Amino acid sequence: MSLTGNFSFHKTKQSWFTRMEKLVGKISTFLASIWKSWYQVGREDPRRAVHAVKVGVALTLVSFLYIFDPLFHRFGNNAMWAVMTVVVVLEFTAGATLCKGLNRGLGTLCAGSLAFLIEVVAEMPGKTFRAIFVGSSVFITGFFATYLRFFPKIKRNFDYGVVVFLLTFNLISVSSFRDDDVVPLACERLFTIGIGCGICLCMTLIFPKWSGDDLHNYTVQKLEGLAKSIEACVSLYFFDQEKDGSSVDVESTKEMISEGYQLILDSKSSDETLAMFASWEPRHLRHCDRYPWQQYVKLGTALRHFGYSAVSLYGCLESEIQTPPSVRRLFRDPCTRVANEVSKILLDLSSCIRAHRQCSPDVFSDQFHQALHDLNSAISSLPCPFLNFKNVQSTAKHATNSKSMVTLPSAKSDVDVLVEKKNNKNESRVRDQPVLRPTLSKIDMLSLEFSEALPFAAFAALLVEMTARLELVIEEVEELGRKFGFKEFEEDLVSIEVRQNETKENVKITDLHSHGVLPSAE
Amino acid sequence: MSLTGNFSFHKTKQSWFTRMEKLVGKISTFLASIWKSWYQVGREDPRRAVHAVKVGVALTLVSFLYIFDPLFHRFGNNAMWAVMTVVVVLEFTAGATLCKGLNRGLGTLCAGSLAFLIEVVAEMPGKTFRAIFVGSSVFITGFFATYLRFFPKIKRNFDYGVVVFLLTFNLISVSSFRDDDVVPLACERLFTIGIGCGICLCMTLIFPKWSGDDLHNYTVQKLEGLAKSIEACVSLYFFDQEKDGSSVDVESTKEMISEGYQLILDSKSSDETLAMFASWEPRHLRHCDRYPWQQYVKLGTALRHFGYSAVSLYGCLESEIQTPPSVRRLFRDPCTRVANEVSKILLDLSSCIRAHRQCSPDVFSDQFHQALHDLNSAISSLPCPFLNFKNVQSTAKHATNSKSMVTLPSAKSDVDVLVEKKNNKNESRVRDQPVLRPTLSKIDMLSLEFSEALPFAAFAALLVEMTARLELVIEEVEELGRKFGFKEFEEDLVSIEVRQNETKENVKITDLHSHGVLPSAE
Repeated sequence: MSLTGNFSFHKTKQSWFTRMEKLVGKISTFLASIWKSWYQVGREDPRRAVHAVKVGVALTLVSFLYIFDPLFHRFGNNAMWAVMTVVVVLEFTAGATLCKGLNRGLGTLCAGSLAFLIEVVAEMPGKTFRAIFVGSSVFITGFFATYLRFFPKIKRNFDYGVVVFLLTFNLISVSSFRDDDVVPLACERLFTIGIGCGICLCMTLIFPKWSGDDLHNYTVQKLEGLAKSIEACVSLYFFDQEKDGSSVDVESTKEMISEGYQLILDSKSSDETLAMFASWEPRHLRHCDRYPWQQYVKLGTALRHFGYSAVSLYGCLESEIQTPPSVRRLFRDPCTRVANEVSKILLDLSSCIRAHRQCSPDVFSDQFHQALHDLNSAISSLPCPFLNFKNVQSTAKHATNSKSMVTLPSAKSDVDVLVEKKNNKNESRVRDQPVLRPTLSKIDMLSLEFSEALPFAAFAALLVEMTARLELVIEEVEELGRKFGFKEFEEDLVSIEVRQNETKENVKITDLHSHGVLPSAE
Repeated sequence: MSLTGNFSFHKTKQSWFTRMEKLVGKISTFLASIWKSWYQVGREDPRRAVHAVKVGVALTLVSFLYIFDPLFHRFGNNAMWAVMTVVVVLEFTAGATLCKGLNRGLGTLCAGSLAFLIEVVAEMPGKTFRAIFVGSSVFITGFFATYLRFFPKIKRNFDYGVVVFLLTFNLISVSSFRDDDVVPLACERLFTIGIGCGICLCMTLIFPKWSGDDLHNYTVQKLEGLAKSIEACVSLYFFDQEKDGSSVDVESTKEMISEGYQLILDSKSSDETLAMFASWEPRHLRHCDRYPWQQYVKLGTALRHFGYSAVSLYGCLESEIQTPPSVRRLFRDPCTRVANEVSKILLDLSSCIRAHRQCSPDVFSDQFHQALHDLNSAISSLPCPFLNFKNVQSTAKHATNSKSMVTLPSAKSDVDVLVEKKNNKNESRVRDQPVLRPTLSKIDMLSLEFSEALPFAAFAALLVEMTARLELVIEEVEELGRKFGFKEFEEDLVSIEVRQNETKENVKITDLHSHGVLPSAE
């Protein structure tokens, strides 16, 4: 009995230990995952940790209003307004903090000035009359202030100010009902809010993070991402498993391309927000017009416009009908060169913006023109009609000046075959027929009937179209240079910068931004 | 003397009158413009005025806490928390109000529960120790709470909650330094905030505006806009001044097309915000999974993906090189029919979503297949090679099966001509040469060398590509129907709805949404 008792005790002890071990393991895994995610957030942008420290310091400073006796005796419980201001106003960038702080100050000031009116009415006799007056003024102000917030201009710049106005006005007007002396109350409140705003301003100007810089770096990053994506997209289009081997990871390249495009396509709201905050930052007002930051937004719009072509180019990669590799191979060299030139121009533009330098008057280099011309020649030299393969043979006989002769696979186009194919969806496909994507297409049978060369024609046309749209981007970049008074273009400077950039190539761009290594916007 | 004096008096009087008249005129113009803009904001969405009234009523209700004696004796100056809550929490849609209200409640509760800990420490002896404790706890909480706000998940759903937590925690902890009894203070604050949230909740549920409905209607609107834009875009591409006359206003049509596309392309942030708020709305939880609203976001993504093709199609209208009208005319009928069918499918989908009905299993009608097939035939039947006009004549002789015979203009492609053209930029162009847009293109000379048919090939390819991408949209709509448990598809129902829609055709879509005429999302 004692043996079994001992055994069961041991067993219990063992199972208890096992459980504890498991629990400790789980807890440590949990803690590790938490630590990992915290580390990740800080690693993405170390300025986040700096901002968190700043908020902590600002809150500690403002809490001195309570902690130190002389300060508390001066302000009393009104110090809470300073605490509230710090919590609400101190934002990640200087522009956002200034925008909120000035809005808060302005809103409180407007509401406080109404306190005089209320003071007059509050002295009137008749409690009922005063109650009606306060109630109706609260309703009317509430209605108009809320309605005002729907105006696009107000919404964009002064939304927070209106909320603060409404808040302060209500607190003052209802307080006036119980407290006859509202003017000192309003002044005190304004004063403590001023202290809060002052602390926020000081904290935001120590290691400042300017929205203008963010907008600037973001634009540079977008241009670079786009350049890389276009180059990768075109080389992936002409990627040949047999010829190039499997050295390229198609999936990760596609992911990289998508990321580059997404950065452009989803940039509208970030551009606008950053430009709005940047327009509140004072240091940029010296050299520039009133809102030159809108030029970055305009450039962003031109880039998005350009991006739609680029993303359609990417769409050709994912298209249901694919031009066979044998045909593509013919255009590989000229297309790749055009894409590389476009990409080079975009990189040029990005390095110009980064260095606050105006771009060269001859952005379109001779190589670019030559590449376009070669693409043209390659297309023109082809003897076969591109949208009608039935006539390939007959045309080929007559094309005597052509450089490259190819026989293209013919595509069926009879209605009978169409119907036959429609009824037999899973029919195995012959090689060199258009390559079908693995989606379960309801209409691929019909799409198949289109010429296989149609997608390539679209690819070429989009490439050419893209070069045309590039001009708009260049125009906006030039306008940006003019508006912000960028340095004049110098031939020698560029070569030095190019060499510098080459040595920096291995450093990750996001790290550069986060550490503030990149030059600031002014 | 008296005459001149009288005259000058009259003159002064007259000029004074004129000035007054001018001033009154200016003031009335100013007032009229203000009234106009106020009216405009209300007309765009009458729910705005309703919301403003609601805010006014809520603020009046909450001011009763000050005005009525028994209430003021119960809550005292803590009533200000209720006022603040109403100003900050009451938002335009029910979802946004609930999100903010619950965040505020949760944040206050978390911060309030920390008051117990502070109560314990506040009883400890030593003012210096307490000061250090309060200061350091404020710093640590400030740091961690701010850092937490950078986590994407927290940022998306609980950003406001963290701010409120930080605010309340700071106020309680600094108050505890001066006031020993913080627990009643925290409870009182929680209670008044609860009252504020309660008033907001009541007001938001009277004539409620659901974010879910907005998202639903917005999706319907996007589909309709896209359908109209595609139809208009294709008919504008084939618009022939000579043949069709000048009945079409090209500029306003282009504007309409752009608006339709912009609605899609800029929809990301609105979709996500509306879906986030909708996920806080309780009434939808009955039938659905936890966050089925994300399906609308997915549909939005598919639509944007589709939109990139559509916008490239529109890009063909604005392209530097244009296929001459004579060539385009050949494909007018089949292209227009395909576009109309695509547009019809999109309208079908939109009416399905609007009526909360699953879409027909045969969305791709026989007409759609026939139109695609006809486009294919039209392209195949052309005798001329499309990308190489030099061979037109020779090919034409050999194409005996073709239905339509056309002679296309030849395009020069010699390098000599290229250089010659480059040197002589302003050379007048012969008619039926590619139509150049009025932009000052630096590269148009080179682009010109490309075949004129290249843009049309791109147009056709994009049209076909678009039909392929339409499938993804349909898949997402089907998934939406499944996830939200839409009514099963019924043949009879559709015909009735189509007839109903036809009679409604003249009513503006925005009016319908604003007045809540459209059925709600559930």
